[in-house]
Amino acid sequence: MSTRYDLAIVGSGAAGISAAINAKLRNKNIIVFGSKDLSAKLIKAPIIDNYLGLPEITGKQLKDKFINHATAMGIEVIPEKINNVYAMGDYFALIANENNYEAVSVIIATGVEFSKTLPGEFEYLGQGVSYCATCDASFFKGKVVTVIGYNQESIDEANFISEIVEKTYFIPMFKGDYALNPNIEMVQGTPVSIKGTDKVELLELKDREITTDGVFILRDSVSPEQLVPGLEMEGKHIKVTRNMETNVAGLYAAGDISGKPYQYMKAAGEGQVATLNAVSFIDDKRKNI
Amino acid sequence: MSTRYDLAIVGSGAAGISAAINAKLRNKNIIVFGSKDLSAKLIKAPIIDNYLGLPEITGKQLKDKFINHATAMGIEVIPEKINNVYAMGDYFALIANENNYEAVSVIIATGVEFSKTLPGEFEYLGQGVSYCATCDASFFKGKVVTVIGYNQESIDEANFISEIVEKTYFIPMFKGDYALNPNIEMVQGTPVSIKGTDKVELLELKDREITTDGVFILRDSVSPEQLVPGLEMEGKHIKVTRNMETNVAGLYAAGDISGKPYQYMKAAGEGQVATLNAVSFIDDKRKNI
Ligand SMILES: Cc1cc2nc3c(=O)[nH]c(=O)nc-3n(C[C@H](O)[C@H](O)[C@H](O)COP(=O)(O)OP(=O)(O)OC[C@H]3O[C@@H](n4cnc5c(N)ncnc54)[C@H](O)[C@@H]3O)c2cc1C
Ligand SMILES: Cc1cc2nc3c(=O)[nH]c(=O)nc-3n(C[C@H](O)[C@H](O)[C@H](O)COP(=O)(O)OP(=O)(O)OC[C@H]3O[C@@H](n4cnc5c(N)ncnc54)[C@H](O)[C@@H]3O)c2cc1C
Repeated sequence: MSTRYDLAIVGSGAAGISAAINAKLRNKNIIVFGSKDLSAKLIKAPIIDNYLGLPEITGKQLKDKFINHATAMGIEVIPEKINNVYAMGDYFALIANENNYEAVSVIIATGVEFSKTLPGEFEYLGQGVSYCATCDASFFKGKVVTVIGYNQESIDEANFISEIVEKTYFIPMFKGDYALNPNIEMVQGTPVSIKGTDKVELLELKDREITTDGVFILRDSVSPEQLVPGLEMEGKHIKVTRNMETNVAGLYAAGDISGKPYQYMKAAGEGQVATLNAVSFIDDKRKNI
Repeated sequence: MSTRYDLAIVGSGAAGISAAINAKLRNKNIIVFGSKDLSAKLIKAPIIDNYLGLPEITGKQLKDKFINHATAMGIEVIPEKINNVYAMGDYFALIANENNYEAVSVIIATGVEFSKTLPGEFEYLGQGVSYCATCDASFFKGKVVTVIGYNQESIDEANFISEIVEKTYFIPMFKGDYALNPNIEMVQGTPVSIKGTDKVELLELKDREITTDGVFILRDSVSPEQLVPGLEMEGKHIKVTRNMETNVAGLYAAGDISGKPYQYMKAAGEGQVATLNAVSFIDDKRKNI
């Protein structure tokens, strides 16, 4: 049987790490998912003037301070992407590519994605469009698949897909090392829209078209509605109360994903508030067992 | 004519200073009221483990980091207590003991007072109970007044009162230097309740009673309802939206005063959110002039 954690935190930016240190201080058994570098945005920020107490700090320096704080408290970030969070009644199931996890309470601190969704992306979701190689590659046996990859991990996923499907195209949306299987055809170009009739037939690029049965879009983050079925939104943000509660009992949200302004202090403060409310929820749950 | 500031921030704890640095970054003309030491609570905190990025820091060290950050941005804290904030339509009037100030928008970041209110305190407010020496001392000419003083500044206020009224008792609720006028009678004791018929007649202490016409209660903070007439509360906190808006247009609240949990990161995050929303309000106001 797998460990049932008190609290799972999805995201390792300012919101997620603040949530984690507060949960540790409250002696909770936690697991944190995200990236070893914590947050792509943190690394990119040239100079940050409004993180109270740390004037004129670079994003990289602030990231190191966050990592030092977390490490000093024994917090480790698990570099896995969570594809789904399911409310199971007594607990939540968190589905990653390889592993599943269980937790009594969950905080969503996944940040917001700046990249726009493609026209056709939502229409064909489940009709050829997918965000998860492990979940869906097997549906494309003997078919043609195009992977739009936004990060280094998408390379591994494209390689995995290429072992299952007939033909794989890969469109890189980032600069890096493309260690692709030789049977993958790399296409440099800008995706414009996904087209078809009742299912995907074509990916339109700026200056060419690819005839394809499937399009895997592999970004850093997953849209919240897709991550947690039934989650109530307010525009593109998760709807939360002042206690960072979502409409799902035991599930909290914090940071950019829970609304503007997009800022570190706001994210860190919300991570703290989310955790302290999750702690009450966990304590109540454990009491009633 | 006095300067009309863009933004007045009442309170200099984590919430107020975070609000101030964000307002400065947005090029607003601001004024911050509070204490030179920023916050009595900051100074008292022995060790703080949950301020993300600054692990195991003492309250004094964190205070110094806040002061350095504020000073580097040219922010000065005016050591005046604001007794009232009045919405004047186009602007707010802020009333201190000696001076009045004007601002287009106001953030209340006064923290919460741990000391309990006395039985009778609210009943007799305006019927003998007062929080403001400058405002009300003249009503007690020829009368007996008792000052319950929670801080060093209450000494000055008691001295001022004693020059106007017939007889002054002073009950110190703090350890310090009591440089009282010789005509003031100091009474060591614990206030228990305020009694009277339609107005104050008696202050009951644990082991004695004082016959008195007035009771001045001089704490660090002023209760929010008293500070801003008509302010909507939720229990003892100011009611706010996720944007830190109160029920008064242009007036925002942040930090402990806007609700639990009482924590630095939460306060700093809320100060930032309050300012960024106040900035939109100010910009809209200035546009329409
Ligand atoms: C160039 C730039 C400069 C900036 N400058 C400033 C500034 O000066 N001041 C300021 O206050 N703000 C600034 N910001 C904004 C700031 O970066 C964000 O507000 C902040 O990063 C939000 O923190 P967060 O924790 O909500 O999300 P993020 O920092 O975005 O972190 C989210 C984390 O969740 C992970 N994640 C997402 N989905 C999943 C999943 N399904 N499974 C597992 N992990 C997942 C991501 O990989 C990431 O690690 C800047 C942003 C940029 C891009
Ligand atoms: C002993 C102790 C230990 C703590 N440890 C921790 C900890 O480890 N971690 C943590 O996160 N939190 C801790 N806290 C809580 C933390 O101190 C508060 O959450 C934080 O100070 C709230 O900040 P604030 O800006 O809302 O208010 P405050 O810090 O209370 O600041 C309010 C300011 O407003 C001023 N003010 C009030 N009324 C007026 C007025 N009418 N006019 C002008 N100025 C006014 C006050 O003088 C003060 O300067 C601790 C508190 C205490 C007492």
